[in-house]
Amino acid sequence: MMSLEESVLQGDRLALARLLTQIENDTSDGRIALDILFPHAGKAHLIGVTGAPGTGKSSLVNQLALHFRRQSKRVAIVAVDPSSPFTGGAVLGDRVRMKDLSGDNGVFIRSMASRGSIGGLARTTANAVQVFDAAGYEIILIETVGAGQSEVDIAKLAHTTLVVEAPGLGDDIQAIKAGILEIADILVVNKADRPGAENAEKALKSMLDLGHPTQRVYIHHGSLAPAPLPVEEGKEARGSEMDVWVPPIQKTIAADGKGIDELVQHIARHGEYLKASGDWAVRERARLESEVEAALQSALMDQFHEHVPEDRFNKVVSQVFDRILSPGEAVKALTTGNGRLK
Amino acid sequence: MMSLEESVLQGDRLALARLLTQIENDTSDGRIALDILFPHAGKAHLIGVTGAPGTGKSSLVNQLALHFRRQSKRVAIVAVDPSSPFTGGAVLGDRVRMKDLSGDNGVFIRSMASRGSIGGLARTTANAVQVFDAAGYEIILIETVGAGQSEVDIAKLAHTTLVVEAPGLGDDIQAIKAGILEIADILVVNKADRPGAENAEKALKSMLDLGHPTQRVYIHHGSLAPAPLPVEEGKEARGSEMDVWVPPIQKTIAADGKGIDELVQHIARHGEYLKASGDWAVRERARLESEVEAALQSALMDQFHEHVPEDRFNKVVSQVFDRILSPGEAVKALTTGNGRLK
Repeated sequence: MMSLEESVLQGDRLALARLLTQIENDTSDGRIALDILFPHAGKAHLIGVTGAPGTGKSSLVNQLALHFRRQSKRVAIVAVDPSSPFTGGAVLGDRVRMKDLSGDNGVFIRSMASRGSIGGLARTTANAVQVFDAAGYEIILIETVGAGQSEVDIAKLAHTTLVVEAPGLGDDIQAIKAGILEIADILVVNKADRPGAENAEKALKSMLDLGHPTQRVYIHHGSLAPAPLPVEEGKEARGSEMDVWVPPIQKTIAADGKGIDELVQHIARHGEYLKASGDWAVRERARLESEVEAALQSALMDQFHEHVPEDRFNKVVSQVFDRILSPGEAVKALTTGNGRLK
Repeated sequence: MMSLEESVLQGDRLALARLLTQIENDTSDGRIALDILFPHAGKAHLIGVTGAPGTGKSSLVNQLALHFRRQSKRVAIVAVDPSSPFTGGAVLGDRVRMKDLSGDNGVFIRSMASRGSIGGLARTTANAVQVFDAAGYEIILIETVGAGQSEVDIAKLAHTTLVVEAPGLGDDIQAIKAGILEIADILVVNKADRPGAENAEKALKSMLDLGHPTQRVYIHHGSLAPAPLPVEEGKEARGSEMDVWVPPIQKTIAADGKGIDELVQHIARHGEYLKASGDWAVRERARLESEVEAALQSALMDQFHEHVPEDRFNKVVSQVFDRILSPGEAVKALTTGNGRLK
C-alpha cells in the first residue's frame, strides 16, 4: 500500500485532505510526512490576501483562483480564520466560493481555524502551505480575515501580500491601515463601483507617499541581507532599478471580475521582481528560519515537561498564585537560573 | 535614593512612567522591578474592553474611567494596539481622551503598541498591568482594538471582559462576533441612539440563546477546575445559582454617558460573581500559569542560543533553505532529538 505522502505526491486529493487533517491535529504521522515532503516543496508562489471584514476578500480570492486556473495553474486556497478560536468554525464562506470552483480538480480549498494560540495557527498554516507546495500546487492563496498582528504573522508566510480595502467601511479602519500598509506588496481597492472608491484610492496613495517620500525602499520581512546573486559573464549585476518595489494600487470589482486581469499581472510582476532582486530567497530563508525557531521552541518545551514532573510544575505555579514567587523567580526555581534544565 | 519600584509603590507617577518604559523595553532593571513588585499585586479588578473599530470603545473606556473616579477608585487605562506592529504608533486616540481625564492624579493612561510578536505584546501588557496593580490602581481597563486572536489573548488577562458592538458596521462583522462572543462576560451595544441598535441587541441576544439554549454555563478561560470554596459551618456550599453567569447586554451612548451607570453595576456584579463562585481564583491561576509558561519558553530559548553558537544555528538554517533538512530534522540536528540540548 502506498503511504499517505506518496499518494499526496501522486495527486490523490483524498490523501491530501487526510494529511491536512493530520497536520491540523499535529499527529506524529503528520510530522513524519512533513519531513518527507519537505524536499519537494519550495516551488509555489505564496500569495497572502488580507484586509478588514467587508472588503470582499473571499470573492477576490475566488476570482484570482479562476484566473490562475485559466492559465492552467494548479491553485490551493488556504482560508485562515484567527477570529474564532473557540468555535473552531470557519467564517470565510467556503460554501459560497465552492459554487464557482467545485468540480475543478486543479483547485483545492482548505479552511483553517485556530484551535489554540495564534502561534499554533500560523505554524499549522505554514505546514499546510508546505504540503500544497510539495503536492505541486503552483499558486497558493493564503486568505486571512481581519487586520491585526495575527494576520501580519500569517502574511509573513507569503511571497506577495495583497492588502484589500473597500470604500465606506468607517473611519477608524483608516487608522488601522497605517500598520497593515507596511506589509502590502500590492494594494487592492475592491468594490470599486461603490461611492468613495476614488477617495479610498487617493487616501491609500497619499499614505504611501507619506510613508515613502520619493520611492518606497523595499522592506524585507526578515532581517537578513539579500543573498548575493550569481553574476553571469558579460552581464552586469542586477541594477538598482530592481531593488525598489513601489506597491501598485489596483481597483477591482470582484463581483464581476473587473480589474482581476491587471491584478494577476501585478502579482506576476512582483514574483519576477522578487526573483530578480534576490528577495525571493531572502523571504524563503526568513520564513524557514522562523519555522525552525518555532519547532525548536516547542521541542524545548516538550523536553521541559518530560523532564519536570507535572506536580512539581503545579506546585511552583501554586507558589506564584500565592505570591510567594514571581513568574520570573518560578522560572529560576524550575531551571538552573539561566534556562538550563536542572 | 529611593529605587524605582519603591517610588512606584509610594505613588510617584514619574517613576511609574519610567518603569513602564523599562518594561516595554524588557530591560533587566524592569525584570527585577517586576519580581519585587509581584507580591504587591493581585488586588485590582482587571477589565478587558474589546470590539471592532468604529464601536466607540475609547469613549466608553473614558466614561467608565470617569465613573470609577467618582467612586474614588484609582483607575489605570492600558490601551493595547496590536494592529500596528511596524509603525509602533498608537491609534487609540489618547489625545482625545486626555481632555476629560487629564489633570486627575487618580488616572493613569498608557498606550502599548506591538514591537514584535503578538505573544510579546500580550506579555508586556500583562507586566504593565501587574505594575499598575502593585502601584495600587484598583480598576485596570485594558482596551484592545479589533476582534482577532490577539485580542482574545489579551482578554485572557482580564477578570471581566466587555465586548463592545455598535449598530451599522457592516455584515461580516456579525460573522466575527461568533468567536468573540464566547469571551464576553458583558455585551455592550454602544452608539445605542443610532438606527439599528434594537436589531443589534436582538441579534446578540439570539446569538447568546443559540450558543446556550437554556442557561449559559460559565466557560473558564483556563482549563482548571474551580478551587474548592471553604464552607462555613451552618451554611450550605454555594449553590448552583452562582455557578452560572448569563452575560447581560447593556445599551450605552458613551458620547453622553447614557447606560454607563448600569454598565458599571454589571461590572461590579460580575466581580462579585467571580469571587463567590471561585472563578476569580481560577482565572488568576490560569493567567499566572500562562505567565510562567511564557517566561519559561523565553528562558529556554535564551539558554539554547547561549549554548548553540550562532554560526552553527545559521548553518543548519542554510541546510533547511537548501531543502537538505526539514525544520523538524533541523531541530533534531540541534538537540539530542528529544529537545534536550546536546
